[in-house]
Amino acid sequence: MFEKLEKQTLSGRVYAQIEALITGGEWEIGSRIPREADLMEQLGVSRNTLREAIRGLVQVGLLETRQGDGTFVTASSELSAILHKRISRSSILEALEVQHALDREAAALACERRTDDDLTQMERYAAACRQAMSGSEDHEAFKDADWNLHRTVVAASRNRLLADLYESLFEKLQVSILANRSISGTRYEIGHPTLIAAIRDRDAERAIRSVDDYIAHFKAPHERPDDNWTDV
Amino acid sequence: MFEKLEKQTLSGRVYAQIEALITGGEWEIGSRIPREADLMEQLGVSRNTLREAIRGLVQVGLLETRQGDGTFVTASSELSAILHKRISRSSILEALEVQHALDREAAALACERRTDDDLTQMERYAAACRQAMSGSEDHEAFKDADWNLHRTVVAASRNRLLADLYESLFEKLQVSILANRSISGTRYEIGHPTLIAAIRDRDAERAIRSVDDYIAHFKAPHERPDDNWTDV
Repeated sequence: MFEKLEKQTLSGRVYAQIEALITGGEWEIGSRIPREADLMEQLGVSRNTLREAIRGLVQVGLLETRQGDGTFVTASSELSAILHKRISRSSILEALEVQHALDREAAALACERRTDDDLTQMERYAAACRQAMSGSEDHEAFKDADWNLHRTVVAASRNRLLADLYESLFEKLQVSILANRSISGTRYEIGHPTLIAAIRDRDAERAIRSVDDYIAHFKAPHERPDDNWTDV
Repeated sequence: MFEKLEKQTLSGRVYAQIEALITGGEWEIGSRIPREADLMEQLGVSRNTLREAIRGLVQVGLLETRQGDGTFVTASSELSAILHKRISRSSILEALEVQHALDREAAALACERRTDDDLTQMERYAAACRQAMSGSEDHEAFKDADWNLHRTVVAASRNRLLADLYESLFEKLQVSILANRSISGTRYEIGHPTLIAAIRDRDAERAIRSVDDYIAHFKAPHERPDDNWTDV
């Protein structure tokens, strides 16, 4: 069904080519795309065809046109663009519950499938979290390391669908949730050693319990159904 | 960020209007959309504007144009269109593991939040499953009732993000998985009474165990990483 798209229109092919540049990371999130004239030449298409493709990409949420400033990359894939649109209409509690579901499954699968390299990486990010919160408390560095630790666990599940959904749903939000909560290093770190030890021992039950504790901690302040992202 | 879209182009507004007709269910999946001339008149826009909007909707996967036959609705929302595209590139094992994650969370939340009406509905669908498999084994009826039972549990989680993801990911696939496995009523039913009883008693631990059993049963024949949808 979806394979037919490419054949359908020239603008559809241009859309797919630009999408591939974005998905492949050649055009990064936040970057301005090349000038219209340059793109027309590089792609060998007319202004109308190019504009139609760009409008499609804006519609989906991959690009954003800022009046008088150019067109910018706003998401790394169609999936992530659409999931951002959807999750921005959710409450924080709803998002955390979905994160709980995916974190738990990822932790259990990581116990089965993790490699020694995965473990080394997890330990490195956990150390970076501790490091960030020692002394002057560098919250930005903590959030980066914490997010990378989560991603490593999810990647160790060896389930690309799970990993894509996880990254698309939570990359931006993880930051919002943490940004808005006063981070006290001790409390946030508690889960890391427990989770990593469980994954090292391939003990799924213990890994799941560690995720349950972690998420319960985050959910507690949001247990109101009307608590949504606009409050963040 | 996304609210700006409506202001941007006329074709973007037409896209949004048509999308709303699809999301709202006025244009159903599988139905042919009205003729171009009629749409131009109803929407008060030019042929070019209309075509641009339609192409955008085709690109996203909400519509499909069949040469010489017209344009048809192929998904019920942007989210579901994009998730279908993504899941069709996954293995069955990957899809089942994500379903496991969401089913488990939904079952646990349903224990907290289910109403008596939810329970009545679950029992009705479970009875329909039994009914379908008694005597002449109506597999179509079983699949419908089984899917509706799953949806009811997920809806009882009172988490719309979870429910949207679940329906968008699994509505079509649930059917594929079941269609391809010889259904022996006894085995498939086992989980239903246990799960429903656990949700009735608000016993999350028991509900989760019942989901674990159910998914393990489905996963068993797909525990090869190269097993994908093209085999279905």
